[in-house]
Amino acid sequence: MTPRREHPVALPLENIDITGGLWGERQTINRDRTIPAIYRQLKATGRIDAWDLSRKRERPKRHTVIYMFFDSDTGKWVEAAAYSLAKHADPVLEKQVDDLVSMVQKAQQPDGYLNTYFTNVEPDKRWTNLRDWHELYNAGHLLEGAVAYSKATGKPALQDILTRYIDHIAERFGPDEGQRHGYCGHPEIELALVRLYYATGERRYFDLAKYFIDERGKQPSYFDMEARERGEDPADFWAETYRYCQAHQPIREQQTATGHSVRAGYLYAGVADIAIETGDAALTETAKRLWDDLTTHQMYITGGLGPARSNEGFTFAYDLPNETAYAETCASISLAFWAQRMFHLDPDGRYIDVMERALYNTILAGCSWDGEHFFYANPLASYPNVNPHEPFSGITSARHFRREEWFLCPCCPPNYSRVVGSIGTYLYSTTADTIYTHLYNDSRAHFALSGGEVQIAQQTNYPWDGEIRLSIQAAQPTAFDLALRIPGWCRSYRLSLNGAPFETAPSQGYVHIRRQWREGDQIALTLDMPVERMMAHPQVREDAGRIALQRGPVVYCLEEVDNGANLANLTIPHSSALTAVMDPDLFGGVSVITGEAVRIEPPTWSGDLYQPIDRAAPAAVPVTFRAIPYFFWANRQPGEMRVWIREG
Amino acid sequence: MTPRREHPVALPLENIDITGGLWGERQTINRDRTIPAIYRQLKATGRIDAWDLSRKRERPKRHTVIYMFFDSDTGKWVEAAAYSLAKHADPVLEKQVDDLVSMVQKAQQPDGYLNTYFTNVEPDKRWTNLRDWHELYNAGHLLEGAVAYSKATGKPALQDILTRYIDHIAERFGPDEGQRHGYCGHPEIELALVRLYYATGERRYFDLAKYFIDERGKQPSYFDMEARERGEDPADFWAETYRYCQAHQPIREQQTATGHSVRAGYLYAGVADIAIETGDAALTETAKRLWDDLTTHQMYITGGLGPARSNEGFTFAYDLPNETAYAETCASISLAFWAQRMFHLDPDGRYIDVMERALYNTILAGCSWDGEHFFYANPLASYPNVNPHEPFSGITSARHFRREEWFLCPCCPPNYSRVVGSIGTYLYSTTADTIYTHLYNDSRAHFALSGGEVQIAQQTNYPWDGEIRLSIQAAQPTAFDLALRIPGWCRSYRLSLNGAPFETAPSQGYVHIRRQWREGDQIALTLDMPVERMMAHPQVREDAGRIALQRGPVVYCLEEVDNGANLANLTIPHSSALTAVMDPDLFGGVSVITGEAVRIEPPTWSGDLYQPIDRAAPAAVPVTFRAIPYFFWANRQPGEMRVWIREG
Repeated sequence: MTPRREHPVALPLENIDITGGLWGERQTINRDRTIPAIYRQLKATGRIDAWDLSRKRERPKRHTVIYMFFDSDTGKWVEAAAYSLAKHADPVLEKQVDDLVSMVQKAQQPDGYLNTYFTNVEPDKRWTNLRDWHELYNAGHLLEGAVAYSKATGKPALQDILTRYIDHIAERFGPDEGQRHGYCGHPEIELALVRLYYATGERRYFDLAKYFIDERGKQPSYFDMEARERGEDPADFWAETYRYCQAHQPIREQQTATGHSVRAGYLYAGVADIAIETGDAALTETAKRLWDDLTTHQMYITGGLGPARSNEGFTFAYDLPNETAYAETCASISLAFWAQRMFHLDPDGRYIDVMERALYNTILAGCSWDGEHFFYANPLASYPNVNPHEPFSGITSARHFRREEWFLCPCCPPNYSRVVGSIGTYLYSTTADTIYTHLYNDSRAHFALSGGEVQIAQQTNYPWDGEIRLSIQAAQPTAFDLALRIPGWCRSYRLSLNGAPFETAPSQGYVHIRRQWREGDQIALTLDMPVERMMAHPQVREDAGRIALQRGPVVYCLEEVDNGANLANLTIPHSSALTAVMDPDLFGGVSVITGEAVRIEPPTWSGDLYQPIDRAAPAAVPVTFRAIPYFFWANRQPGEMRVWIREG
Repeated sequence: MTPRREHPVALPLENIDITGGLWGERQTINRDRTIPAIYRQLKATGRIDAWDLSRKRERPKRHTVIYMFFDSDTGKWVEAAAYSLAKHADPVLEKQVDDLVSMVQKAQQPDGYLNTYFTNVEPDKRWTNLRDWHELYNAGHLLEGAVAYSKATGKPALQDILTRYIDHIAERFGPDEGQRHGYCGHPEIELALVRLYYATGERRYFDLAKYFIDERGKQPSYFDMEARERGEDPADFWAETYRYCQAHQPIREQQTATGHSVRAGYLYAGVADIAIETGDAALTETAKRLWDDLTTHQMYITGGLGPARSNEGFTFAYDLPNETAYAETCASISLAFWAQRMFHLDPDGRYIDVMERALYNTILAGCSWDGEHFFYANPLASYPNVNPHEPFSGITSARHFRREEWFLCPCCPPNYSRVVGSIGTYLYSTTADTIYTHLYNDSRAHFALSGGEVQIAQQTNYPWDGEIRLSIQAAQPTAFDLALRIPGWCRSYRLSLNGAPFETAPSQGYVHIRRQWREGDQIALTLDMPVERMMAHPQVREDAGRIALQRGPVVYCLEEVDNGANLANLTIPHSSALTAVMDPDLFGGVSVITGEAVRIEPPTWSGDLYQPIDRAAPAAVPVTFRAIPYFFWANRQPGEMRVWIREG
């Protein structure tokens, strides 16, 4: 089962192997280090044992809500494990999952209900607070993990268990009399249900997803009603407004991306799914409107979303502070999910430009080079002693903002892991007779087109350079349209087909080569990748007078370890030449950017904290700077970091 | 009773009248608008009625600690009222205070104890949590109010009541066996006790102040012990560290200004008081060390202290963010208190420079031009929709950071009011034969020197210009040293005595004129007051590449109402001329600064949120800017504000 055939679909994971390059390296680390590290943490924090209902648990005194979404963390790890197992046999890992599946099976209630917290800890509270307690969100993540695992291993058990649970949910929630007209405070189940629909062909799962999206935000509010049933005043909602969970009005009436950014991204991805499948013009319009608002007003250059810690989300247009940026890793993941679906809804490279921005910057930054430390928030500037999301940092002792082994709320690590494991599905989309290339990375992909089966091998060192070679393998000549993405960041490129220049202007971000393809056809695409001085919209007050360095899709940053302290005093002149060079010794080989800058500082400072500038006599001292890819920051000795650099 | 005579002392309030000028205008508003507004709020919020113990009160469910320091708010209002009554009869106001005094009298317990909360609401909790519950802090503020009121009106009742209470405290706390070795989590009582000592001559009050300061931070910690007595684990202290309340080590061992900044300022003021009186060299050294740390590493150019909301206080050296600055009004008030005492301990104009900076910037900013709205936090940049201290601002609706009529924790409004009412005491200090002038403002002052009695009348439009005239009145020729402060911000000045130039280099910030003064002697001091482009220390990352405009002691800011939006794009070139002009229509007449700036913005923006700077093509458009005194910001239509302006 695939989406309506007039829309492109992602190439399934089983059709593609990542064979090297940056993503290959990240996948190896993911398999060898990240997935085991997450399992150890799930085990150590009781998330695995939570499935053993014979262990009676008490309501925790603090951070109770965290315990309510234990299951989602495990679900995401199962999904990450599934993608790894799909490509790389690992009996130890598979046994870990199978043991878990046995526990899950035993934990399922006779009526199909499946939730460790509301079965074991507060069974009387089941389905009493959809707004805050993540019950459907947990179901969604477990469902995604189940679908992925059953597909990867051919073992139906987990998907069967979850399908029973979803049937239970579908009975309880829906438009009919006797059903609850509710939906989850934290969207996620919507896109998971669409996935189950595609996996099973059962339309009722799609219908439930669509119901959740259509019902959301209607008046009278389900969340109001539910709060009153709990004896609470809905006005006491801790987050003050249902904008927090995008339930302040029906989705079709919403004008701006708002609220908790992960919730927003997942919801909007679900909206795109429904629009693809239904062709609903109003919903398509809504998805595009929210997309335009988010990407032109509320997105960091790193693809980070949501500047504010208070709501883990959006504030208002052009409010993009750097040092205090929340920019949760999960939010950028939700953006990538949504972007891919937007392309499928409306095939245009502009969506993939954003997907690429999120993947190559904030999402990759979510995990350390060693694969065992994670960022939850992803600021665009960092300063010793400052942890903007830890109230007493800089006060009790010197602390740096660094990746952590785990979090009280550990949504990001397994989310990162499942994206890396499934990165292959982001490289291509297809229709019956078109292959769209989105990302470039060493890989081998297999396509079943209306005209026959073909394979494409990619060879490239992308994103470190823009040389990309595609080799076609086809048992027999096959007609299709190969649509090669020319990224939005790319101002000039050269394309050749079997050594001869191929000159066609790209359309909506893609150069289309329609022909009868033959075994051994060679495409060489060179995307010119100079260092770009990027400027933010003039209403982004935090970035005024500053530039960010970007090369290809990769945003760069300065770190103190390379450039000394007081990075705020470093200015890159208009005229200075900027050079990208491969540093083979850095993180296994990455391109760094060097160039001439000036440090504008008084040679000495003998006055008070403040003094007239003519007395301070700042001098401009030429220095050579070195910038590294943002996504690998904080992997060496701690110190200052900044993306937006003074310019002038 | 006055301090040891080798140290200067402040001229008492009864010896000086403010006769006009900026402070005269603020005092009129304070009397007519601010003091009544605060009383209305005290009444409306139950702070007056709290003294009626016949009204049984329940423990509030939320914000309980706020209710525990109700008495301090009232104490500060009494003090403000006292200063006003000392200069201006007001039967209505005096009756309000007298009625309150009657209630206070009835509320005093047979043993002298006096606290509305711990008498009426939780009597069993008396003296069980000095760390958090502000009991001694309340006593301190009530005491200051009582001393001021009894002096202003000659009515001894309130001071007698408080003296009984202090005697009760002195019995309970102290070094002896059977006494508790405690001290307040929120310092304040120390300086209040010294004040009572000066008012009564009773040395035991001084000794108690000294005891509180000497005992603070000793090991084993009183706060630890007290927490264990409550059955709590001291490690669970919500503020994580006793640095929060400057009790992490004995004061003589403390190296840096740390923790909650109001607590710090009051404590350090008390430390200076003790050092003045005892001549304790180590304590003097400590006071100077903490002073140097605070003023050269941790002070905003506005005299604001404490960048962080989390601890309402200090973080680390050079961490001075502008938009999120906490910089509580009370903290700058505590700094002014401390600065004046530092001068008395170590007569040097550098302390008065800081006192002046705090008074003319953050402290004056604490109240609106209309006298009825107040700032608690005092950011140095503000942006529509951003209230950095209100978690959901910018999310639920458009809100500006503006002065409020009142606060849940309303410490700042009455604190501002008492400072304005007593501003006369900051103009002069004296020894037996020296008169130091600190601040310049229209005023008449009376001095009783060893050589006889003299009066000085000041005429000036300071801080709007630097012309100051002092006229001496003396019934007979009187010898004394007139020490005229040449502010640290002043690079050139002219001084004449009876029309003839008087040329002596200043020493430690003062020009000394020692002579036999006669009736009618005239001094004319002209402090050149050009607009200064101020630069921050090169490690202040937030201010890199920026200047602040200062003229005399007044720091200026740009407001959107004068300069349009997107103030971040405004740059003041090195070379542009800056002019100060009096605007008689603005806030009753203030100097504003105008000059040429450039707006660096792309004329149009047709691209994405980010684009290469060569495509954005920013242009520099010349504009005339207008800056107003920072302390009057947010008195017109809401919009952006910034103190630190791009320079280049």
